[in-house]
Amino acid sequence: MALLLKTDIERGDAWQRALHAADPDMTVHDWPYDGDPAEIEFALVWGPPRGALRRFADLKAIFSIGAGIDHLASDPELPDGVPVVRMVEPGLTAGMTEFVILGVLTHHRFMLDYAAQQRTRIWREIPQIAAARRRVGIMGLGVLGSEAADKVAALGFAVAGWSRSPKERPGISTFHGEAGLEPFLARSDILVCLLPLTVETEGILNARTFAALPRGAALVSTGRGGHVVEADLLAALDSGQIGGATLDVFREEPLPPESPFWAHPRVILTPHVASMTIPDSAAEAVVANIRRLRAGQPLHHVVDLRRGY
Amino acid sequence: MALLLKTDIERGDAWQRALHAADPDMTVHDWPYDGDPAEIEFALVWGPPRGALRRFADLKAIFSIGAGIDHLASDPELPDGVPVVRMVEPGLTAGMTEFVILGVLTHHRFMLDYAAQQRTRIWREIPQIAAARRRVGIMGLGVLGSEAADKVAALGFAVAGWSRSPKERPGISTFHGEAGLEPFLARSDILVCLLPLTVETEGILNARTFAALPRGAALVSTGRGGHVVEADLLAALDSGQIGGATLDVFREEPLPPESPFWAHPRVILTPHVASMTIPDSAAEAVVANIRRLRAGQPLHHVVDLRRGY
Repeated sequence: MALLLKTDIERGDAWQRALHAADPDMTVHDWPYDGDPAEIEFALVWGPPRGALRRFADLKAIFSIGAGIDHLASDPELPDGVPVVRMVEPGLTAGMTEFVILGVLTHHRFMLDYAAQQRTRIWREIPQIAAARRRVGIMGLGVLGSEAADKVAALGFAVAGWSRSPKERPGISTFHGEAGLEPFLARSDILVCLLPLTVETEGILNARTFAALPRGAALVSTGRGGHVVEADLLAALDSGQIGGATLDVFREEPLPPESPFWAHPRVILTPHVASMTIPDSAAEAVVANIRRLRAGQPLHHVVDLRRGY
Repeated sequence: MALLLKTDIERGDAWQRALHAADPDMTVHDWPYDGDPAEIEFALVWGPPRGALRRFADLKAIFSIGAGIDHLASDPELPDGVPVVRMVEPGLTAGMTEFVILGVLTHHRFMLDYAAQQRTRIWREIPQIAAARRRVGIMGLGVLGSEAADKVAALGFAVAGWSRSPKERPGISTFHGEAGLEPFLARSDILVCLLPLTVETEGILNARTFAALPRGAALVSTGRGGHVVEADLLAALDSGQIGGATLDVFREEPLPPESPFWAHPRVILTPHVASMTIPDSAAEAVVANIRRLRAGQPLHHVVDLRRGY
């Protein structure tokens, strides 16, 4: 019995090494695999072709290499009844927390404005407001959103979180559901999106959302490109309703060279690098989960495919 | 008996309000003051003219508005025997911690490189290393340096601190003195300067210092412009020995328009805004210290003028 690994080519060796270190007895086959389908017990994958996992009749679990599982949920031919497990591992969480703090501080400290002043050699202080009076709003209070919320709050910011269902978290104001969205947005000077991409959250960052924010609010978009209605974001940036944005994810990736985001003076653009699964820590998490299953315990972090996360 | 206040013009009103709120019974005179010198018991000042505090014979303490006291220590005609108190207040500390975290994360996450890629519309991931393997070195372990070191370490970075005299701090590797400088620098991928400006630290960020860092190290310079030998820094940036720098302080401020730092592609430049004393919280700290003195207790945060901090 073996694990089938489908990752990007550059990281294949690191994953092989990490999985071997985490469980030297586990056989790992690289994708594509032409051997006996019955040998494959687990799949650890990113973006498998539609229907490609169906032929493994003895598959016991599908592990997503990324935190998001939209690459799997969007496959209508995913094998029935096989649990799908989202990636939860400390490296991925820490990386996202870093990126969110960086994005929040960049806008809080007016770094886009100071960069513009630097280009024109202007030495001028912009009155700084205290973190306690800067309201950060985090959409999504899953593993990534909760950790980011805690760490941003630890820096003294006034942090609120919004999620589909009610959640409570010490030190964080929480809002939920359709009814909670507008009051949440109205108090968010810096909006961070860490939602999963689902049918419900597709296009959630749209003109109505932006209009509900305080004028000049900043956006840190690190969930999925599908959350953003890009034309609406451009209009909000051009009108000044959105004062600045850190954009890491896009509808089409790589972002086409003709996209107006590249040269927008109020946009900081990164190529989907906010956080990456780290093979070493991730392999340990996957192997621990497999051991749980073998010991007859329930798998951790199994996704509800209908809900989409 | 009264307090004499010398601040910049824009902040005068905020200081007056804050001091009144902290102690409604205290008389506060704005600079310049033409009244009876004997009425002045305390001075709360930034950059008083040389010798200008001498005429207040009954002065009991001089409070610096900033964390640094080089603006006072450099005055050879400062009244003898009057304690000089550095500014320690939570707003100033929090602001500096924010700026240091922002600077560290900016270089850790290759934001200068991603900005260059954005300008040329290149979508390319740069392999990220984990915070645990990124070695941050903080020069100066006073109030600001210690707090910054703790908060950077809390994000998972490998943090060391360097100070003149030996210090210990949980979770931070510490180095001290001339002998400790080179080993400290050799392990610092991101160097942060939060030293006081003294005769000993003037020009401490020089060619020898930069050469002792790992090649491509980043610099976050937020202490004083006098720490930096600017020609040496430019040479190190141009050779790639320093891979990037966040510079908030300069020898001459405002930085002259002809300075090559403005347009340097590896420099993020801000106009001495890393941290500011916040009148509300600072007034409380000053009033609490005055009350301590009146109650016969020793003042907190008195400076050793010979040492320079």
